[in-house]
Amino acid sequence: MLDKVVFVVMDGLGDRPIPELSGDTPLEAAHTPNIDKLASASQCGSMCALGRGKKPGSDTSHLAIMGYDPTVYHSGRGPIEVAGIGIELQGGDIALRGNLGTVDHNWIIKDRRAGRIRDVQPFTEALDGLRIEDVEFIVKPGTAHRAGVVLRGRDLSDAVTDADPHELDLPVRRVDPTEKNPEAERTAEVLNSFHLKSHEILTDHPHNRRRTDQGLLPANFLLLRGAGTYRELPSFQERYGLSACCIAGGGLYKGIGAILGMKVIDVPGATGLPDTDVEAKFQTAVTKLPDFDFIFVHVKAADSLAEDGNYDGKKSFIEKIDRASRLFLDLPPDVLLVMTADHSTPCGLRQHSADPVPILFCGHGVRKDNVTTFGERACATGGLGLITGLDVMPEVENLLGRLPLIGA
Amino acid sequence: MLDKVVFVVMDGLGDRPIPELSGDTPLEAAHTPNIDKLASASQCGSMCALGRGKKPGSDTSHLAIMGYDPTVYHSGRGPIEVAGIGIELQGGDIALRGNLGTVDHNWIIKDRRAGRIRDVQPFTEALDGLRIEDVEFIVKPGTAHRAGVVLRGRDLSDAVTDADPHELDLPVRRVDPTEKNPEAERTAEVLNSFHLKSHEILTDHPHNRRRTDQGLLPANFLLLRGAGTYRELPSFQERYGLSACCIAGGGLYKGIGAILGMKVIDVPGATGLPDTDVEAKFQTAVTKLPDFDFIFVHVKAADSLAEDGNYDGKKSFIEKIDRASRLFLDLPPDVLLVMTADHSTPCGLRQHSADPVPILFCGHGVRKDNVTTFGERACATGGLGLITGLDVMPEVENLLGRLPLIGA
Repeated sequence: MLDKVVFVVMDGLGDRPIPELSGDTPLEAAHTPNIDKLASASQCGSMCALGRGKKPGSDTSHLAIMGYDPTVYHSGRGPIEVAGIGIELQGGDIALRGNLGTVDHNWIIKDRRAGRIRDVQPFTEALDGLRIEDVEFIVKPGTAHRAGVVLRGRDLSDAVTDADPHELDLPVRRVDPTEKNPEAERTAEVLNSFHLKSHEILTDHPHNRRRTDQGLLPANFLLLRGAGTYRELPSFQERYGLSACCIAGGGLYKGIGAILGMKVIDVPGATGLPDTDVEAKFQTAVTKLPDFDFIFVHVKAADSLAEDGNYDGKKSFIEKIDRASRLFLDLPPDVLLVMTADHSTPCGLRQHSADPVPILFCGHGVRKDNVTTFGERACATGGLGLITGLDVMPEVENLLGRLPLIGA
Repeated sequence: MLDKVVFVVMDGLGDRPIPELSGDTPLEAAHTPNIDKLASASQCGSMCALGRGKKPGSDTSHLAIMGYDPTVYHSGRGPIEVAGIGIELQGGDIALRGNLGTVDHNWIIKDRRAGRIRDVQPFTEALDGLRIEDVEFIVKPGTAHRAGVVLRGRDLSDAVTDADPHELDLPVRRVDPTEKNPEAERTAEVLNSFHLKSHEILTDHPHNRRRTDQGLLPANFLLLRGAGTYRELPSFQERYGLSACCIAGGGLYKGIGAILGMKVIDVPGATGLPDTDVEAKFQTAVTKLPDFDFIFVHVKAADSLAEDGNYDGKKSFIEKIDRASRLFLDLPPDVLLVMTADHSTPCGLRQHSADPVPILFCGHGVRKDNVTTFGERACATGGLGLITGLDVMPEVENLLGRLPLIGA
């Protein structure tokens, strides 16, 4: 009987045929003996996280494949990233993502990442706890140049524009309300005041004086974007009766784990980059099996490499995932292994796409089909057919014998 | 990267196995080396324009495969045909299709097409501009015995019955309201007055006196049907950011192009009949590629032949389409080719059916599958699976990298 689940999401894994890879996709071209062995023992299929013809973001697709309908539960990327940073959110909080960047005296952006600054903690500490009117600002360091910002107070709204224009040599944008109501108008004003005030504090920060002396760009502006209202979600445990943990490098994916109430486990070497230690992550997944019922493992880099159009890099990274996947060849007999992706990121397109991704379900009692390789087109012929993200968790519950009975 | 689309709809292409064709469908039995070569380079699938178990009209199915949900956007065949005739419609116009037919003095229909009259212009001219109460009648010639009629005025409704009983030796039907409201009641009255008045005018028309002298049936009645209210649709260009043209012989299909704001291109020899010059149409499609992003090509006759039960004729016509399809073998690398049908018209049934039709997507980056012939059953095993009409345009947008991102 299946009792536990290892659930591996390989970000942006799906792709399209690439002439330079003899018309194979990077996944098809990669040498993946371990995952192929797993596929041979699996029921395979294709999956469109948000359904056919929808191009998923990473946030919405993860919600869907965890069984949380994004049309109900998605409320912007800010709250997810901020949860991943470890800020405990409360219902009604407005959360934003921020970059520590460099602006000139006219607030023209000279560098969106302040020269790819790595340690932002001294700067976030200087801003953390700031109050504007009756709104408290919680400001915490994220990965590299990133920070998470939470506005806590009454009558706030996430209906505001981004300050970050996403491009160099443009001025910081005024935050404007996107809805005509007092909450949105007030939140925009408060954020504009925050930019003014925080810019002063950062400009005068001793670390910045030191950076300027060393010829480094000052981290003198916290560029905010992605406002979202935090709504409490039913936890994964509550929803499925499965204790769950999250093993991820990237902040967004830790955030997904955090907002679903999963225990977020930090694995040394899990960077969310191509140099990440996939082996350490998969080993941690296996090691944590006695402690959790559901182990969500996220691997990022196939997506980023595809966004750079680097199909060779993507192929090599998939081979790296495959080598670590040998750890899944001998899982205990009560473990269901699910391997899939959140969406395709075709190297030729350098962006997400709606193309289906492969999925495999491997474990005791699964209706093994004739698929023998884990590839986009091979899995499309699998026994599962084409499913959506919201079909995945019911399938997991079904295999575990945990679905509620409808009728009698 | 794909930038442009050639989109070919072969009307009524799908069929069922026919014993006289050794259990093949006309498409399967036809010798189609060019389309098969295209299928071999494609991702193939099956499509039900309105979904499984729905029997589509040509109007509703075309709206669906162009991405316009017919439950939202369909408002009767009249407005579409009339747009195809070239009448510029205004919001609130009521449009109807008409046949010029022959009735006796008791208004019993002796011929619904006045002996298949070809030139109706002298008759429509005699009726064009007629006013009944404050309603203006715009009457223009369609193809062969057909005309388009538009009622322009205030407080009109399309909730009225057809005057045309669609059968011989039956009386012209009184137009009745199908809803209980003053607009529908008034429109029915106005249309009944129009029939009275127009019958007088046509009976006295010098061309009819001449026809009677020559032993021809007089075109003494304009039989109206298919009332619909014109609603402005978001144009194809607006909706997809793709400049589009329409290459079609039949009025309805030109009308589809016209109501979607496509440039309707007249191709000499495009008749909408089995004698149509498919080659000229496909050549025009290729020639127009520099000028448009999306080229909709409609080919009619497979449908009409099937409605006559003529499976040999349908098979031969498909072979004619195949010969012209050699022009699509060497499309530029930025062109996506889509070939499909709007619905099946089984020769054994002599009417539309809900059986899926084959579809192929051919172009750079498409996930080519193992299908090597373009047939109903071969394509059903294709990588795309079974899709609906409303899935088609999102798939086109996906392949072009033009879908909006849902989430971040």
